[in-house]
Amino acid sequence: MLNGAIRNTKTLSLDELISNVQKRDRRSIARAITVIENDYAETADMLRKLAKSQGQAYRVGITGPPGAGKSTLTSELTKKLRALGKTVAVIAVDPTSPFTGGALLGDRIRMQDISMDPGVYVRSMATRGSLGGLSAKAKDAADVLDAAGFDYILFETVGVGQSELDIAKAADTTIVVLVPESGDAVQAMKSGLMEIADFFIMNKADREGADQAVAALKTILTFRVTHAEDEWIPNVVKTVASKAEGLDKVIEEIERHHAHLVKVGEFERRRIGRERERVHELVEAMLRVDFWSDKRQSELESRLGKVMSRETTSYDIAHQMIEEFHHR
Amino acid sequence: MLNGAIRNTKTLSLDELISNVQKRDRRSIARAITVIENDYAETADMLRKLAKSQGQAYRVGITGPPGAGKSTLTSELTKKLRALGKTVAVIAVDPTSPFTGGALLGDRIRMQDISMDPGVYVRSMATRGSLGGLSAKAKDAADVLDAAGFDYILFETVGVGQSELDIAKAADTTIVVLVPESGDAVQAMKSGLMEIADFFIMNKADREGADQAVAALKTILTFRVTHAEDEWIPNVVKTVASKAEGLDKVIEEIERHHAHLVKVGEFERRRIGRERERVHELVEAMLRVDFWSDKRQSELESRLGKVMSRETTSYDIAHQMIEEFHHR
Repeated sequence: MLNGAIRNTKTLSLDELISNVQKRDRRSIARAITVIENDYAETADMLRKLAKSQGQAYRVGITGPPGAGKSTLTSELTKKLRALGKTVAVIAVDPTSPFTGGALLGDRIRMQDISMDPGVYVRSMATRGSLGGLSAKAKDAADVLDAAGFDYILFETVGVGQSELDIAKAADTTIVVLVPESGDAVQAMKSGLMEIADFFIMNKADREGADQAVAALKTILTFRVTHAEDEWIPNVVKTVASKAEGLDKVIEEIERHHAHLVKVGEFERRRIGRERERVHELVEAMLRVDFWSDKRQSELESRLGKVMSRETTSYDIAHQMIEEFHHR
Repeated sequence: MLNGAIRNTKTLSLDELISNVQKRDRRSIARAITVIENDYAETADMLRKLAKSQGQAYRVGITGPPGAGKSTLTSELTKKLRALGKTVAVIAVDPTSPFTGGALLGDRIRMQDISMDPGVYVRSMATRGSLGGLSAKAKDAADVLDAAGFDYILFETVGVGQSELDIAKAADTTIVVLVPESGDAVQAMKSGLMEIADFFIMNKADREGADQAVAALKTILTFRVTHAEDEWIPNVVKTVASKAEGLDKVIEEIERHHAHLVKVGEFERRRIGRERERVHELVEAMLRVDFWSDKRQSELESRLGKVMSRETTSYDIAHQMIEEFHHR
């Protein structure tokens, strides 16, 4: 299907591709995201040309520990937003494995019933490739989907690693999904999820212990109250995603948070922060490409032997190579 | 305690510090790792001087999802290695939170009974700071502990993110710890843990369903058998870390894997790979520092406003700034 999309659109000029993306043509969107995954130079050109038609989509990050039910929740939230007449794009970031090829079958099936809807676009992106690279690419893909005119962009990530947290931070509103299992809130604290949550969802809230888990989470949250002016205190919303329960409250809370961001000026600040971060990522990627020429890579290989024989250290090699780079 | 260590050793010259580290003086080791966390230039100098006395320690990565019992296992494995007359250093990488300050109390108490032993050194390192930075620092700390003459260095990490996986990959042998809870093996597959495991531990193996979980994991593992010559097929070892059960088998499996690595030439290859990775990390850190001068940072801030007004894009800014950097 994707290969078909590429074949059918590859004779398009970039301007035609962009114009098709802006008309929300699915094959062209797929092609544009494939460009992002594979071709840096064309991506730069494309995003520059798409820049003027961006900025309307509201970006929501949905993260949390494995098993919290994020895929089901994302899927049900999408249906609810559709019922309200909103268009929705989902970027699902699945840690990949050579023998699963990304998302597991169950998740794919769950996504399929929403992805038949023309007002919905679902794209999986894999965590293969270099560190930090995925978060940049997921943000680029969100820009394409924004330019395509989707009202909401949902990032679904496993919230348990730096690069996944980076994706969540690229959102306007970040939701952390937990389940009532004992210790889940404690684990969330340990893995840095508490700091990025604009609000929490206690999913599978029909399970035993849900009310206690919500109470425990609220207690933990009170430790963070600073009484600063315009302080936003994260709420906890209960859902049973598998039965589509509580989704109205989730949407209400997203809207309440959006209104708060706008009111205190944080909406603009977050978006500037996101662009700043992106320039940093791009500069670092470009410096890396400039530096690691074939010649310099084979130079490194010949020097590594001397590290093993303890004649030099990786610090010395790095230092010498940087010196040589600056005095080209 | 740490402040005391710094105060008492800061008048030492670098050569004295190094000589004390090599005598396994605890305060000097603590000071050396604090240097790594804070001072790039001094770290380079220190590690260069320590290089010749490294390479004897065997490095074991212990990773797995939150709640698998990694801290208890690390602690019990340490006791077992001590009983065999081996010295052990533990580097515990805990995702930090501003209001927990790293490890939770329970973990700290568990570690405390081993850290009173002079043949054991335990150090927590936090995941604050920049992406990828921690894995470089954890490896540097391991070099110090190696030079200090510890027989084993155990890296304990939450194995659910790229930077944590990078730390695990810095080990000679990487162990992935799972528990019999349903779906744990599936989650491990999803988060890329399967690929890095040299063997698995099924911890809490006295729980119901442990044998089925081991069988399921072994089935998944058979999919990966390639029948290549000298193929290493990851084993599954059952433990009940809280009752110190199964640790003998863990040590046996570490030794069996070590022997295999040496036999097939992989031991040396992994260590070269580790140094190559480190040169890459160092070069990138140095390029980043060179690039982001105060002047260039304020230049970026003034240009970001134009991204918000859609006159330019982060791609254009990055491109222009790189051009200016190269034509200094």
